Amino acid sequence: MTAYEELLSKYKELKLFSTAGGILYWDMQTYMPPGAVMLRSEQLGVLTKIAHRMLVDPEIGKLLDLAEKDKDALDEVGRRNIHLYRKGYDEQTKLPEKLVGEIAKQSAIADEAWKKAKDSNDWKSFEPELQKSVDLAIERAEILKEVKGTSTVYDTLIDDYEPKMSADEISRVFSELRDGLVPLAEKYSEMSTKVDTSFLGKEIPIDIQRKIAVDVATTVGYDTTSETAGGRIDEVEHPFTVGYYDDVRITVKYHVDNFASALFAILHEAGHGLYEQNLNQEWKYQPLGEAASAGIHESESRFLENMIGRSPEFWKFYFPRLNELTGNAFSGIQMETVTKAANLVKPSKIRIEADEVTYSLHIIIRFEIERDLFSGKIEVSELPQVWNQKYEEYLGVKIETDTEGVLQDTHWGSGLYGYFPSYALGNIYDGMWFEQMNKDMPNWVGNLAKGEIIPAIDWHKKNIHVRSNLHDPGDLAKLVTGKSLTAKPFLEYLKAKYSKIFG
Amino acid sequence: MTAYEELLSKYKELKLFSTAGGILYWDMQTYMPPGAVMLRSEQLGVLTKIAHRMLVDPEIGKLLDLAEKDKDALDEVGRRNIHLYRKGYDEQTKLPEKLVGEIAKQSAIADEAWKKAKDSNDWKSFEPELQKSVDLAIERAEILKEVKGTSTVYDTLIDDYEPKMSADEISRVFSELRDGLVPLAEKYSEMSTKVDTSFLGKEIPIDIQRKIAVDVATTVGYDTTSETAGGRIDEVEHPFTVGYYDDVRITVKYHVDNFASALFAILHEAGHGLYEQNLNQEWKYQPLGEAASAGIHESESRFLENMIGRSPEFWKFYFPRLNELTGNAFSGIQMETVTKAANLVKPSKIRIEADEVTYSLHIIIRFEIERDLFSGKIEVSELPQVWNQKYEEYLGVKIETDTEGVLQDTHWGSGLYGYFPSYALGNIYDGMWFEQMNKDMPNWVGNLAKGEIIPAIDWHKKNIHVRSNLHDPGDLAKLVTGKSLTAKPFLEYLKAKYSKIFG
Repeated sequence: MTAYEELLSKYKELKLFSTAGGILYWDMQTYMPPGAVMLRSEQLGVLTKIAHRMLVDPEIGKLLDLAEKDKDALDEVGRRNIHLYRKGYDEQTKLPEKLVGEIAKQSAIADEAWKKAKDSNDWKSFEPELQKSVDLAIERAEILKEVKGTSTVYDTLIDDYEPKMSADEISRVFSELRDGLVPLAEKYSEMSTKVDTSFLGKEIPIDIQRKIAVDVATTVGYDTTSETAGGRIDEVEHPFTVGYYDDVRITVKYHVDNFASALFAILHEAGHGLYEQNLNQEWKYQPLGEAASAGIHESESRFLENMIGRSPEFWKFYFPRLNELTGNAFSGIQMETVTKAANLVKPSKIRIEADEVTYSLHIIIRFEIERDLFSGKIEVSELPQVWNQKYEEYLGVKIETDTEGVLQDTHWGSGLYGYFPSYALGNIYDGMWFEQMNKDMPNWVGNLAKGEIIPAIDWHKKNIHVRSNLHDPGDLAKLVTGKSLTAKPFLEYLKAKYSKIFG
Repeated sequence: MTAYEELLSKYKELKLFSTAGGILYWDMQTYMPPGAVMLRSEQLGVLTKIAHRMLVDPEIGKLLDLAEKDKDALDEVGRRNIHLYRKGYDEQTKLPEKLVGEIAKQSAIADEAWKKAKDSNDWKSFEPELQKSVDLAIERAEILKEVKGTSTVYDTLIDDYEPKMSADEISRVFSELRDGLVPLAEKYSEMSTKVDTSFLGKEIPIDIQRKIAVDVATTVGYDTTSETAGGRIDEVEHPFTVGYYDDVRITVKYHVDNFASALFAILHEAGHGLYEQNLNQEWKYQPLGEAASAGIHESESRFLENMIGRSPEFWKFYFPRLNELTGNAFSGIQMETVTKAANLVKPSKIRIEADEVTYSLHIIIRFEIERDLFSGKIEVSELPQVWNQKYEEYLGVKIETDTEGVLQDTHWGSGLYGYFPSYALGNIYDGMWFEQMNKDMPNWVGNLAKGEIIPAIDWHKKNIHVRSNLHDPGDLAKLVTGKSLTAKPFLEYLKAKYSKIFG
């Protein structure tokens, strides 16, 4: 075996091991008996520890040195594998174990403090724990800067989720995005108030919603029923997708009086799921047999949820089918009402309740705060005030309590910094895909009305999924669309859709 | 940390790791998408490999040497932990990796050959693969003899499942057992033909059977519903129990026209499950925090299935409840009919369909064949002929094809030799428990009729479960009952029950 082959053989072990951990996580959220909580947390702890040991094995360092000497003999795939392997190895080995332990411990403490603070609207009790968390994240980022080749702390944090993306570049596209979204939000939120949305609250029994979920998942190609299916749908408190290639599971939460919530959630998670299932089979168990980034992942889920799932064409096809599945619960409702209801705009305080137009504004606020926090422009103690001011400015909503403001998200308490931008980057990538799809397949949107959804998925499979992690996300977008990162196509897509729906 | 403490800390990791593998196995049998078969088999393969590496770590050998020097400073628990640890370590390290690999490979080949041979009633195609399997088992046993301190190959194989038990001792109790069972089988199979069992075939919808399963499990203390439950019931092709302390899951297969099959299966698996859940909490993650043997495990499942589940007293309590749960599907059926139907005797060709009286005869046949095969008295090629002869002699049934004869069980094809005796040893231990329970709690059987089942379970918890693996199974039986292994109590239990039911 060459050093390169030996590295791949070790990586396969590591990957099989970590994906086994994914199933244990899924089990914990779905079917695990409640009495097993402590046991499971210890099991997951040991798996993480052993996976870490496998990754920082000095033997891997030696093999990487050897393989890098022979790098020119490798093709693009081989060189990318070595690059990703090296990056992961260096990141894991450069961090002192003590710091890794402190971060894990502080994340647990801060997360607990966040839950209490949110419940009791008590920012002050959370502030010192968040400060410690932020300080540790900075300490970690200072060490990783060299490995990642980043120049600032915040760029280093972003690189964890969106490799090679920078705060400067995100600032540029987010400012473009914000300038376009603010007037759109104003215009269509006004028009949205006139839509009769009462049918959205109609009670649809959970059993029927389960059938709808399988049907809509199948419609977009996420297979849970055939003899070779690699997917499942299960019910959880907070939906997620987990898995690898041949075993990728999505989850959902049903609400009896809000069928649309589960329907869009299924589309969203199926978007994540299809990406994982369609990764390049030749690169299974290799470093590049993975998604390109969190932002690209989000582009795939949002493409299905929003660009397909909220399009008038999709509803033209799917509403009669939905009506049939519900035993004609929606007979007599106009198609115009349906598409307007699926595309309401309503500036709100809560990110996870936001619509397609205002969602990115919630993200831009979080990004700007993170950016300014990690560059030292603002202090942790100023977060509530800055938060409320930006919500007023960008969304026109007045935040009354920190619970519905700066304390609403779990991310910062859990130590996730630099993650938020991925959500809106997903929308931006989607705009770019949308524009390119229109060039490559001019009738694809119109064909959705005939139920022809798979060709759109296949475009994503060919252009994004099978490319897996061969390219950093910015390079991937450029390769697929010929363009550098730009928010314009997403804004144009929104403008066209909304003017079509609301006139 | 002392060497002993360090050993325990390493064992905890190993145990958390292997129990995580148990959940992956459960998932494979229950909810895994069908397309994931290959991925899962690779995941389980890597987990096994890493667990093996963890166990044969030379550091453990050094720590064992150190801890053994200080053994006198340890109490009974500590010494037992060291003994079990040493035994496992030596067994794993003394076997050449090459041989372990060959056995794994040959087991897969022989299992595949067995499936085909059974399907096509073609013993000859299986024979050479079985011969190779047997030869490898002998090679392995010759190496392990020294570690285990056993004197023959077959004793070594038995020791894998029933530590310190010997073929001689099993021959002694099985011959006692056979002599008692043969006349019982003759007498009651004759009387069984007159019982009207038509109600057993009544169609009970699976949804109702699921409710019965939860109800009967709860009745015997296997909790699947409370906020601290550590159990679950799921549906599989071949029922099994898997888990550890706080997360022990049982499985079942429902047949719409045979409700009794699932009901007894639930009791059987709940017996296994309660044993695992009731292991001594203080010994969790330690070598002795495990069941004492396969035979003791089987005694716990058979106690619930047969001694409780087929007793007239249990049915007096449970039949009205069953009738209610089924919407009075069984109204008008006499209690006498019910208890006779639950205790039919019918000598048959197939082990897994056997009743409480004839089941052990199936096992004795397999034991005698294994014993004579591994002592060289018979050859692999003679197995079908010996099999058929013994079935005629012990059970009075004529085997027409090898498919319904020597090819019926999966064990030998999978390389499991020395395992069969555990099943009948379970019955023998049960007889001993039954006799002792009657001394300790004279009214316990009568009280079953009032639904007081938990006191019987508690007796098992106190006398067997919490003792975990502190004693080898023979010593445990002696400690609990004051007697050496004997089949008499089991035979007396059967005689008393059958004469009570059939008169």
